[in-house]
Amino acid sequence: MNVLIVFAHPDPRSLNASLRAVAVEELEAQGHSVEVTDLYAMGWKAEVDRADFPALDPDARLKVATASGDAVAADTLTEDVKAEQEKLLRAEVLILQFPLWWFTMPAILKGWVDRVYAYGFAYGVGEHSDHRWGDRYGEGMLAGKRAMLIVTTGGWEQHYSPRGINGPIDDLLFPINHGILHYPGYDVLPPFVTYRVDRLDEAGFEQAAERLRERMRTLDSTPPIPFRRQNGGDYLIPSLELRPDLGAAGSSSFKLHLQREG
Amino acid sequence: MNVLIVFAHPDPRSLNASLRAVAVEELEAQGHSVEVTDLYAMGWKAEVDRADFPALDPDARLKVATASGDAVAADTLTEDVKAEQEKLLRAEVLILQFPLWWFTMPAILKGWVDRVYAYGFAYGVGEHSDHRWGDRYGEGMLAGKRAMLIVTTGGWEQHYSPRGINGPIDDLLFPINHGILHYPGYDVLPPFVTYRVDRLDEAGFEQAAERLRERMRTLDSTPPIPFRRQNGGDYLIPSLELRPDLGAAGSSSFKLHLQREG
Repeated sequence: MNVLIVFAHPDPRSLNASLRAVAVEELEAQGHSVEVTDLYAMGWKAEVDRADFPALDPDARLKVATASGDAVAADTLTEDVKAEQEKLLRAEVLILQFPLWWFTMPAILKGWVDRVYAYGFAYGVGEHSDHRWGDRYGEGMLAGKRAMLIVTTGGWEQHYSPRGINGPIDDLLFPINHGILHYPGYDVLPPFVTYRVDRLDEAGFEQAAERLRERMRTLDSTPPIPFRRQNGGDYLIPSLELRPDLGAAGSSSFKLHLQREG
Repeated sequence: MNVLIVFAHPDPRSLNASLRAVAVEELEAQGHSVEVTDLYAMGWKAEVDRADFPALDPDARLKVATASGDAVAADTLTEDVKAEQEKLLRAEVLILQFPLWWFTMPAILKGWVDRVYAYGFAYGVGEHSDHRWGDRYGEGMLAGKRAMLIVTTGGWEQHYSPRGINGPIDDLLFPINHGILHYPGYDVLPPFVTYRVDRLDEAGFEQAAERLRERMRTLDSTPPIPFRRQNGGDYLIPSLELRPDLGAAGSSSFKLHLQREG
Protein backbone atom coordinates (compact mmCIF):
# COMPACT_ATOMS: atom_id res chain seq x y z
CA MET A 1 0.00 0.00 0.00
CA ASN A 2 0.94 3.65 -0.31
CA VAL A 3 1.09 5.34 3.08
CA LEU A 4 1.30 9.09 3.61
CA ILE A 5 2.54 10.43 6.96
CA VAL A 6 1.87 14.10 7.59
CA PHE A 7 4.27 15.05 10.36
CA ALA A 8 4.16 18.14 12.58
CA HIS A 9 7.02 18.52 15.03
CA PRO A 10 9.63 21.29 14.81
CA ASP A 11 12.60 19.23 16.05
CA PRO A 12 14.15 16.51 13.86
CA ARG A 13 15.62 14.96 17.02
CA SER A 14 12.31 14.82 18.89
CA LEU A 15 10.60 11.74 20.26
CA ASN A 16 8.02 12.24 17.53
CA ALA A 17 10.76 12.08 14.92
CA SER A 18 12.05 8.85 16.48
CA LEU A 19 8.57 7.32 16.44
CA ARG A 20 8.15 8.39 12.85
CA ALA A 21 11.37 6.59 11.94
CA VAL A 22 10.05 3.46 13.67
CA ALA A 23 6.80 3.66 11.71
CA VAL A 24 8.52 4.24 8.38
CA GLU A 25 10.96 1.39 8.93
CA GLU A 26 8.22 -1.07 9.88
CA LEU A 27 5.97 -0.02 7.00
CA GLU A 28 8.79 -0.43 4.50
CA ALA A 29 9.71 -3.80 6.02
CA GLN A 30 6.10 -4.83 5.32
CA GLY A 31 6.54 -3.85 1.67
CA HIS A 32 4.53 -0.66 1.81
CA SER A 33 5.76 2.50 0.17
CA VAL A 34 5.83 5.55 2.42
CA GLU A 35 5.68 9.23 1.61
CA VAL A 36 6.26 11.85 4.32
CA THR A 37 5.01 15.42 4.41
CA ASP A 38 7.28 17.01 7.03
CA LEU A 39 5.49 20.30 7.57
CA TYR A 40 8.20 22.11 9.50
CA ALA A 41 10.99 20.88 7.22
CA MET A 42 9.17 22.12 4.12
CA GLY A 43 8.23 25.47 5.70
CA TRP A 44 4.52 24.83 5.27
CA LYS A 45 2.43 28.02 5.23
CA ALA A 46 -0.22 27.66 7.92
CA GLU A 47 -2.57 30.57 7.24
CA VAL A 48 -5.40 30.58 4.73
CA ASP A 49 -5.26 33.97 3.06
CA ARG A 50 -5.60 35.70 -0.31
CA ALA A 51 -2.24 34.36 -1.47
CA ASP A 52 -3.90 30.92 -1.59
CA PHE A 53 -6.18 32.10 -4.40
CA PRO A 54 -4.01 33.82 -6.98
CA ALA A 55 -6.90 33.95 -9.47
CA LEU A 56 -9.18 35.81 -7.05
CA ASP A 57 -10.07 39.34 -8.16
CA PRO A 58 -8.02 41.65 -5.89
CA ASP A 59 -11.13 43.76 -5.26
CA ALA A 60 -13.35 40.80 -4.40
CA ARG A 61 -14.14 39.84 -0.83
CA LEU A 62 -12.34 36.71 0.30
CA LYS A 63 -15.09 34.20 1.01
CA VAL A 64 -13.00 31.14 1.73
CA ALA A 65 -15.41 28.40 0.65
CA THR A 66 -16.29 30.21 -2.58
CA ALA A 67 -12.71 31.13 -3.43
CA SER A 68 -11.60 27.60 -2.66
CA GLY A 69 -14.34 26.02 -4.79
CA ASP A 70 -13.60 28.36 -7.69
CA ALA A 71 -9.89 27.55 -7.46
CA VAL A 72 -10.55 23.79 -7.47
CA ALA A 73 -12.85 24.12 -10.47
CA ALA A 74 -10.38 26.27 -12.42
CA ASP A 75 -7.32 24.37 -11.20
CA THR A 76 -5.78 27.52 -9.77
CA LEU A 77 -4.90 26.35 -6.27
CA THR A 78 -1.28 26.97 -5.31
CA GLU A 79 1.29 24.30 -6.14
CA ASP A 80 1.98 23.35 -2.51
CA VAL A 81 -1.70 22.63 -1.92
CA LYS A 82 -2.12 20.70 -5.17
CA ALA A 83 0.91 18.57 -4.35
CA GLU A 84 -0.63 17.57 -1.01
CA GLN A 85 -3.97 16.77 -2.62
CA GLU A 86 -2.19 14.51 -5.11
CA LYS A 87 -0.44 12.74 -2.25
CA LEU A 88 -3.80 12.18 -0.56
CA LEU A 89 -5.27 10.71 -3.73
CA ARG A 90 -2.26 8.41 -4.16
CA ALA A 91 -2.16 7.14 -0.59
CA GLU A 92 -4.34 4.27 0.59
CA VAL A 93 -3.52 5.18 4.18
CA LEU A 94 -3.11 8.62 5.75
CA ILE A 95 -1.36 9.06 9.09
CA LEU A 96 -1.36 12.41 10.89
CA GLN A 97 1.42 12.53 13.49
CA PHE A 98 1.73 15.31 16.06
CA PRO A 99 2.25 16.25 19.69
CA LEU A 100 -1.05 17.17 21.34
CA TRP A 101 -0.81 20.92 22.03
CA TRP A 102 -3.71 22.42 23.92
CA PHE A 103 -5.81 19.32 23.33
CA THR A 104 -5.58 19.37 19.54
CA MET A 105 -3.06 19.53 16.70
CA PRO A 106 -0.32 22.18 16.38
CA ALA A 107 -1.17 25.23 14.28
CA ILE A 108 1.02 24.16 11.36
CA LEU A 109 -0.96 20.93 10.93
CA LYS A 110 -4.29 22.70 11.32
CA GLY A 111 -3.05 24.96 8.53
CA TRP A 112 -2.39 21.91 6.38
CA VAL A 113 -6.01 20.86 6.90
CA ASP A 114 -7.40 24.37 6.39
CA ARG A 115 -5.52 24.81 3.10
CA VAL A 116 -5.44 21.31 1.56
CA TYR A 117 -9.07 20.48 2.40
CA ALA A 118 -10.48 22.68 -0.37
CA TYR A 119 -14.15 23.03 -1.33
CA GLY A 120 -14.87 20.50 -4.06
CA PHE A 121 -12.07 18.30 -2.76
CA ALA A 122 -12.75 17.55 0.92
CA TYR A 123 -16.13 19.27 1.28
CA GLY A 124 -18.86 20.56 -0.98
CA VAL A 125 -18.81 17.24 -2.84
CA GLY A 126 -21.81 15.26 -4.09
CA GLU A 127 -25.51 15.76 -4.56
CA HIS A 128 -28.00 17.11 -2.06
CA SER A 129 -31.46 15.56 -2.21
CA ASP A 130 -34.17 14.08 0.00
CA HIS A 131 -31.95 11.15 0.93
CA ARG A 132 -28.41 12.52 0.53
CA TRP A 133 -26.67 15.51 2.06
CA GLY A 134 -23.61 15.54 -0.11
CA ASP A 135 -20.82 12.99 0.01
CA ARG A 136 -19.42 13.28 3.50
CA TYR A 137 -19.05 11.36 6.76
CA GLY A 138 -18.00 8.08 5.24
CA GLU A 139 -18.35 9.11 1.61
CA GLY A 140 -16.36 11.59 -0.47
CA MET A 141 -13.15 11.90 -2.43
CA LEU A 142 -11.14 9.90 0.11
CA ALA A 143 -13.65 7.09 0.73
CA GLY A 144 -12.26 3.57 0.69
CA LYS A 145 -9.02 4.73 2.29
CA ARG A 146 -7.89 4.41 5.91
CA ALA A 147 -6.54 7.05 8.26
CA MET A 148 -5.18 7.19 11.80
CA LEU A 149 -3.52 9.52 14.27
CA ILE A 150 -0.16 9.09 16.01
CA VAL A 151 -0.24 11.40 19.01
CA THR A 152 2.09 12.15 21.91
CA THR A 153 1.21 14.02 25.06
CA GLY A 154 3.04 15.10 28.19
CA GLY A 155 -0.01 14.39 30.37
CA TRP A 156 -0.89 11.22 32.24
CA GLU A 157 -3.13 8.57 30.70
CA GLN A 158 -5.50 8.76 33.70
CA HIS A 159 -6.03 12.47 33.09
CA TYR A 160 -7.42 11.52 29.67
CA SER A 161 -9.46 8.55 30.92
CA PRO A 162 -13.28 8.40 30.85
CA ARG A 163 -13.52 10.42 34.08
CA GLY A 164 -10.18 12.24 33.79
CA ILE A 165 -10.07 16.02 34.10
CA ASN A 166 -8.89 16.73 30.54
CA GLY A 167 -11.80 14.80 29.06
CA PRO A 168 -11.59 11.34 27.47
CA ILE A 169 -8.94 11.18 24.77
CA ASP A 170 -11.41 9.70 22.26
CA ASP A 171 -13.74 12.64 22.77
CA LEU A 172 -10.94 15.20 22.52
CA LEU A 173 -9.87 13.59 19.24
CA PHE A 174 -13.45 13.24 17.90
CA PRO A 175 -13.36 16.60 16.07
CA ILE A 176 -10.30 15.30 14.21
CA ASN A 177 -11.22 11.63 13.75
CA HIS A 178 -14.84 12.32 12.81
CA GLY A 179 -14.78 15.93 11.62
CA ILE A 180 -11.53 15.92 9.64
CA LEU A 181 -10.86 12.27 8.72
CA HIS A 182 -14.26 10.57 8.47
CA TYR A 183 -15.77 13.67 6.85
CA PRO A 184 -14.08 13.33 3.42
CA GLY A 185 -14.57 9.57 3.52
CA TYR A 186 -11.81 7.86 5.48
CA ASP A 187 -12.30 4.76 7.57
CA VAL A 188 -10.61 5.92 10.76
CA LEU A 189 -8.53 3.55 12.86
CA PRO A 190 -8.23 3.99 16.63
CA PRO A 191 -5.48 6.49 17.45
CA PHE A 192 -2.01 5.52 18.65
CA VAL A 193 -1.38 7.63 21.76
CA THR A 194 1.75 7.80 23.93
CA TYR A 195 1.41 9.55 27.30
CA ARG A 196 3.93 11.27 29.63
CA VAL A 197 6.45 11.49 26.84
CA ASP A 198 8.65 13.95 28.73
CA ARG A 199 9.42 11.19 31.23
CA LEU A 200 9.93 8.37 28.75
CA ASP A 201 13.15 6.43 29.39
CA GLU A 202 14.77 4.04 26.96
CA ALA A 203 12.68 1.07 28.07
CA GLY A 204 9.54 3.17 27.82
CA PHE A 205 10.48 4.27 24.33
CA GLU A 206 11.10 0.69 23.23
CA GLN A 207 7.69 -0.34 24.57
CA ALA A 208 6.03 2.50 22.67
CA ALA A 209 8.01 1.63 19.54
CA GLU A 210 6.89 -2.00 19.73
CA ARG A 211 3.24 -0.99 20.17
CA LEU A 212 3.65 1.26 17.14
CA ARG A 213 5.26 -1.46 15.02
CA GLU A 214 2.32 -3.71 15.81
CA ARG A 215 -0.10 -0.99 14.70
CA MET A 216 1.87 -0.53 11.46
CA ARG A 217 1.77 -4.31 10.83
CA THR A 218 -2.01 -4.36 11.28
CA LEU A 219 -2.95 -1.24 9.33
CA ASP A 220 -5.22 -3.14 6.96
CA SER A 221 -6.72 -5.55 9.49
CA THR A 222 -7.47 -3.23 12.44
CA PRO A 223 -11.22 -2.57 12.60
CA PRO A 224 -11.99 1.12 12.10
CA ILE A 225 -13.90 3.22 14.63
CA PRO A 226 -17.51 2.35 13.70
CA PHE A 227 -18.68 5.88 12.85
CA ARG A 228 -22.13 5.94 11.29
CA ARG A 229 -22.43 6.94 7.64
CA GLN A 230 -24.36 10.11 7.03
CA ASN A 231 -26.35 8.80 4.07
CA GLY A 232 -26.83 5.26 5.36
CA GLY A 233 -30.29 5.90 6.80
CA ASP A 234 -29.32 6.63 10.42
CA TYR A 235 -29.80 10.40 10.14
CA LEU A 236 -32.88 12.43 9.29
CA ILE A 237 -32.47 14.71 6.27
CA PRO A 238 -32.16 17.71 6.24
CA SER A 239 -31.84 18.10 10.04
CA LEU A 240 -29.08 15.45 10.14
CA GLU A 241 -30.14 14.50 13.63
CA LEU A 242 -29.78 10.87 14.59
CA ARG A 243 -33.07 8.98 14.17
CA PRO A 244 -35.00 8.96 17.45
CA ASP A 245 -34.96 5.16 17.62
CA LEU A 246 -31.15 5.00 17.44
CA GLY A 247 -28.63 5.68 20.18
CA ALA A 248 -29.35 5.95 23.88
CA ALA A 249 -32.41 8.12 24.52
CA GLY A 250 -31.47 11.38 26.17
CA SER A 251 -27.78 10.87 25.41
CA SER A 252 -26.01 13.64 23.61
CA SER A 253 -22.45 12.43 23.61
CA PHE A 254 -20.17 11.91 20.63
CA LYS A 255 -20.77 8.17 21.11
CA LEU A 256 -24.18 8.56 19.48
CA HIS A 257 -22.28 8.64 16.20
CA LEU A 258 -20.89 5.15 16.65
CA GLN A 259 -22.82 2.16 15.35
CA ARG A 260 -23.88 -0.23 18.05
CA GLU A 261 -21.40 -3.00 18.22
CA GLY A 262 -22.67 -6.55 18.30
CA MET B 1 -13.46 47.00 32.01
CA ASN B 2 -10.63 46.27 29.62
CA VAL B 3 -11.69 43.86 26.90
CA LEU B 4 -9.32 42.11 24.51
CA ILE B 5 -10.68 40.68 21.25
CA VAL B 6 -8.39 38.26 19.43
CA PHE B 7 -9.72 38.15 15.90
CA ALA B 8 -8.95 35.57 13.20
CA HIS B 9 -10.52 36.20 9.81
CA PRO B 10 -8.49 37.03 6.69
CA ASP B 11 -11.02 39.44 5.13
CA PRO B 12 -11.62 42.90 6.64
CA ARG B 13 -14.99 42.98 4.85
CA SER B 14 -16.17 39.63 6.21
CA LEU B 15 -19.24 38.97 8.30
CA ASN B 16 -16.87 38.31 11.19
CA ALA B 17 -15.38 41.77 10.75
CA SER B 18 -18.88 43.29 10.77
CA LEU B 19 -19.76 41.41 13.95
CA ARG B 20 -16.52 42.54 15.52
CA ALA B 21 -17.41 46.16 14.75
CA VAL B 22 -20.80 45.63 16.41
CA ALA B 23 -19.12 44.19 19.51
CA VAL B 24 -16.54 46.97 19.75
CA GLU B 25 -19.16 49.68 19.31
CA GLU B 26 -21.43 48.24 21.98
CA LEU B 27 -18.58 47.66 24.42
CA GLU B 28 -17.36 51.23 24.01
CA ALA B 29 -20.90 52.54 24.38
CA GLN B 30 -20.97 50.71 27.73
CA GLY B 31 -17.81 52.54 28.77
CA HIS B 32 -15.43 49.62 28.37
CA SER B 33 -12.07 50.04 26.72
CA VAL B 34 -11.38 47.59 23.90
CA GLU B 35 -8.12 46.32 22.48
CA VAL B 36 -8.07 44.19 19.31
CA THR B 37 -5.45 41.68 18.23
CA ASP B 38 -6.20 41.28 14.52
CA LEU B 39 -4.04 38.26 13.72
CA TYR B 40 -4.19 38.45 9.92
CA ALA B 41 -3.73 42.24 9.85
CA MET B 42 -0.62 42.00 12.01
CA GLY B 43 0.82 39.04 10.07
CA TRP B 44 0.87 36.81 13.15
CA LYS B 45 3.37 33.92 12.90
CA ALA B 46 1.44 30.72 13.52
CA GLU B 47 4.18 28.11 13.92
CA VAL B 48 6.04 27.36 17.13
CA ASP B 49 9.66 26.88 16.07
CA ARG B 50 13.23 27.69 17.12
CA ALA B 51 12.84 31.34 16.15
CA ASP B 52 10.51 31.66 19.15
CA PHE B 53 13.40 30.96 21.50
CA PRO B 54 16.30 33.19 20.44
CA ALA B 55 18.25 32.34 23.61
CA LEU B 56 18.11 28.57 22.94
CA ASP B 57 21.50 27.01 22.23
CA PRO B 58 21.55 26.32 18.46
CA ASP B 59 22.83 22.80 19.15
CA ALA B 60 20.22 21.99 21.79
CA ARG B 61 17.15 19.93 21.01
CA LEU B 62 13.98 21.99 20.85
CA LYS B 63 11.82 20.69 23.70
CA VAL B 64 8.98 23.15 23.51
CA ALA B 65 7.83 23.13 27.15
CA THR B 66 11.40 23.41 28.43
CA ALA B 67 12.44 26.10 25.96
CA SER B 68 9.26 28.01 26.67
CA GLY B 69 9.72 27.81 30.46
CA ASP B 70 13.35 28.89 30.18
CA ALA B 71 12.38 31.84 27.99
CA VAL B 72 9.68 32.97 30.42
CA ALA B 73 12.09 32.73 33.35
CA ALA B 74 14.84 34.65 31.53
CA ASP B 75 12.42 37.06 29.85
CA THR B 76 13.68 36.07 26.39
CA LEU B 77 10.39 35.37 24.63
CA THR B 78 9.98 37.26 21.36
CA GLU B 79 8.42 40.72 21.45
CA ASP B 80 5.24 39.72 19.62
CA VAL B 81 4.52 37.02 22.20
CA LYS B 82 5.34 39.26 25.17
CA ALA B 83 3.05 41.96 23.83
CA GLU B 84 0.15 39.49 23.70
CA GLN B 85 0.85 38.24 27.21
CA GLU B 86 0.78 41.83 28.47
CA LYS B 87 -2.57 42.36 26.75
CA LEU B 88 -3.91 39.24 28.46
CA LEU B 89 -2.75 40.48 31.85
CA ARG B 90 -4.33 43.91 31.23
CA ALA B 91 -7.69 42.62 30.00
CA GLU B 92 -10.45 41.64 32.42
CA VAL B 93 -12.27 39.96 29.55
CA LEU B 94 -10.85 37.96 26.65
CA ILE B 95 -12.91 37.28 23.53
CA LEU B 96 -11.67 34.88 20.85
CA GLN B 97 -13.51 35.49 17.58
CA PHE B 98 -13.24 33.16 14.59
CA PRO B 99 -15.04 31.23 11.89
CA LEU B 100 -15.30 27.53 12.79
CA TRP B 101 -13.04 25.74 10.29
CA TRP B 102 -13.04 21.96 10.51
CA PHE B 103 -14.79 22.07 13.86
CA THR B 104 -12.20 24.22 15.61
CA MET B 105 -10.30 27.50 15.28
CA PRO B 106 -8.30 28.54 12.17
CA ALA B 107 -4.59 27.72 12.22
CA ILE B 108 -3.54 31.33 12.78
CA LEU B 109 -5.49 31.50 16.04
CA LYS B 110 -4.25 28.09 17.17
CA GLY B 111 -0.79 29.49 16.57
CA TRP B 112 -1.59 32.43 18.82
CA VAL B 113 -2.49 29.95 21.57
CA ASP B 114 0.51 27.69 20.91
CA ARG B 115 2.95 30.62 21.09
CA VAL B 116 1.42 32.99 23.67
CA TYR B 117 0.48 30.25 26.14
CA ALA B 118 4.04 29.74 27.35
CA TYR B 119 5.17 27.41 30.14
CA GLY B 120 5.21 29.40 33.36
CA PHE B 121 2.56 31.73 31.95
CA ALA B 122 -0.43 29.61 30.94
CA TYR B 123 0.76 26.20 32.15
CA GLY B 124 3.41 24.83 34.46
CA VAL B 125 2.25 27.29 37.13
CA GLY B 126 1.83 26.62 40.86
CA GLU B 127 2.72 23.94 43.36
CA HIS B 128 2.19 20.21 43.04
CA SER B 129 1.36 18.42 46.28
CA ASP B 130 -1.06 15.90 47.77
CA HIS B 131 -3.95 18.29 47.34
CA ARG B 132 -2.91 20.51 44.42
CA TRP B 133 -1.88 19.70 40.88
CA GLY B 134 -0.55 23.08 39.88
CA ASP B 135 -2.69 26.13 39.29
CA ARG B 136 -4.93 25.19 36.40
CA TYR B 137 -8.56 24.56 35.52
CA GLY B 138 -10.00 27.55 37.30
CA GLU B 139 -6.75 28.77 38.84
CA GLY B 140 -3.65 30.26 37.25
CA MET B 141 -2.30 33.51 35.90
CA LEU B 142 -5.60 34.50 34.31
CA ALA B 143 -7.93 33.56 37.17
CA GLY B 144 -10.57 36.09 38.12
CA LYS B 145 -10.99 37.12 34.48
CA ARG B 146 -13.75 36.16 32.05
CA ALA B 147 -13.50 34.79 28.53
CA MET B 148 -15.86 33.85 25.73
CA LEU B 149 -15.95 32.75 22.11
CA ILE B 150 -17.64 34.48 19.18
CA VAL B 151 -17.99 31.84 16.47
CA THR B 152 -19.55 31.69 13.02
CA THR B 153 -20.26 28.57 11.02
CA GLY B 154 -21.71 27.79 7.61
CA GLY B 155 -23.54 24.73 8.95
CA TRP B 156 -27.07 24.44 10.26
CA GLU B 157 -27.81 24.75 13.97
CA GLN B 158 -29.56 21.36 13.96
CA HIS B 159 -26.41 19.68 12.66
CA TYR B 160 -24.68 20.89 15.85
CA SER B 161 -27.58 20.01 18.16
CA PRO B 162 -27.42 17.33 20.89
CA ARG B 163 -28.12 14.56 18.32
CA GLY B 164 -26.80 16.38 15.24
CA ILE B 165 -24.25 14.68 13.01
CA ASN B 166 -21.38 17.12 13.65
CA GLY B 167 -21.63 16.60 17.39
CA PRO B 168 -23.09 19.08 19.89
CA ILE B 169 -21.53 22.52 19.55
CA ASP B 170 -20.76 22.67 23.28
CA ASP B 171 -18.81 19.42 23.06
CA LEU B 172 -16.94 20.52 19.93
CA LEU B 173 -15.96 23.73 21.74
CA PHE B 174 -15.09 21.95 25.02
CA PRO B 175 -11.39 21.55 24.13
CA ILE B 176 -11.27 25.34 23.68
CA ASN B 177 -13.58 26.48 26.48
CA HIS B 178 -12.23 24.03 29.05
CA GLY B 179 -8.78 23.15 27.72
CA ILE B 180 -7.64 26.59 26.52
CA LEU B 181 -9.73 29.13 28.46
CA HIS B 182 -10.60 27.51 31.81
CA TYR B 183 -7.13 25.92 32.01
CA PRO B 184 -5.15 29.12 32.80
CA GLY B 185 -7.95 30.32 35.07
CA TYR B 186 -10.70 32.05 33.09
CA ASP B 187 -14.35 31.91 34.00
CA VAL B 188 -15.78 30.97 30.61
CA LEU B 189 -19.07 32.39 29.39
CA PRO B 190 -21.32 30.43 27.03
CA PRO B 191 -20.21 30.95 23.42
CA PHE B 192 -21.96 33.27 20.97
CA VAL B 193 -22.55 31.17 17.84
CA THR B 194 -24.07 32.24 14.52
CA TYR B 195 -25.06 29.46 12.10
CA ARG B 196 -25.56 29.34 8.31
CA VAL B 197 -23.64 32.57 7.89
CA ASP B 198 -23.26 32.12 4.13
CA ARG B 199 -27.02 32.53 3.80
CA LEU B 200 -27.44 35.44 6.20
CA ASP B 201 -29.49 38.29 4.72
CA GLU B 202 -29.69 41.81 6.13
CA ALA B 203 -32.49 40.96 8.55
CA GLY B 204 -30.59 37.88 9.70
CA PHE B 205 -27.49 39.95 10.26
CA GLU B 206 -29.40 42.52 12.28
CA GLN B 207 -30.83 39.74 14.47
CA ALA B 208 -27.36 38.33 15.07
CA ALA B 209 -26.02 41.81 15.78
CA GLU B 210 -28.74 42.45 18.36
CA ARG B 211 -28.05 39.11 20.08
CA LEU B 212 -24.38 40.05 20.15
CA ARG B 213 -25.03 43.52 21.57
CA GLU B 214 -27.05 41.91 24.35
CA ARG B 215 -24.14 39.56 25.13
CA MET B 216 -21.74 42.51 25.20
CA ARG B 217 -24.05 44.41 27.57
CA THR B 218 -24.18 41.42 29.96
CA LEU B 219 -20.51 40.43 29.94
CA ASP B 220 -20.16 40.83 33.67
CA SER B 221 -23.54 39.43 34.68
CA THR B 222 -23.79 36.33 32.47
CA PRO B 223 -23.21 33.20 34.58
CA PRO B 224 -20.12 31.31 33.40
CA ILE B 225 -20.17 27.68 32.30
CA PRO B 226 -19.97 25.90 35.68
CA PHE B 227 -16.73 23.98 35.04
CA ARG B 228 -15.43 22.25 38.15
CA ARG B 229 -12.19 23.53 39.69
CA GLN B 230 -9.33 21.07 39.64
CA ASN B 231 -8.17 21.73 43.19
CA GLY B 232 -11.61 22.23 44.72
CA GLY B 233 -11.92 18.67 46.00
CA ASP B 234 -13.89 17.14 43.11
CA TYR B 235 -10.92 15.31 41.59
CA LEU B 236 -8.67 12.63 43.04
CA ILE B 237 -4.97 13.54 43.11
CA PRO B 238 -2.78 12.51 41.34
CA SER B 239 -5.08 10.56 38.98
CA LEU B 240 -7.24 13.67 38.43
CA GLU B 241 -10.25 11.46 37.88
CA LEU B 242 -13.59 12.77 39.07
CA ARG B 243 -14.49 11.40 42.51
CA PRO B 244 -16.62 8.26 42.17
CA ASP B 245 -19.52 9.85 44.07
CA LEU B 246 -19.75 12.79 41.64
CA GLY B 247 -21.27 12.91 38.17
CA ALA B 248 -23.55 10.32 36.64
CA ALA B 249 -22.23 6.80 37.23
CA GLY B 250 -21.01 5.22 34.02
CA SER B 251 -21.09 8.53 32.18
CA SER B 252 -17.94 9.60 30.43
CA SER B 253 -19.04 12.73 28.66
CA PHE B 254 -17.52 16.19 28.90
CA LYS B 255 -20.54 17.10 31.04
CA LEU B 256 -18.94 15.30 33.99
CA HIS B 257 -16.77 18.38 34.33
CA LEU B 258 -19.71 20.67 35.01
CA GLN B 259 -20.89 21.22 38.55
CA ARG B 260 -24.42 20.03 39.16
CA GLU B 261 -26.73 22.95 38.83
CA GLY B 262 -29.35 23.47 41.52
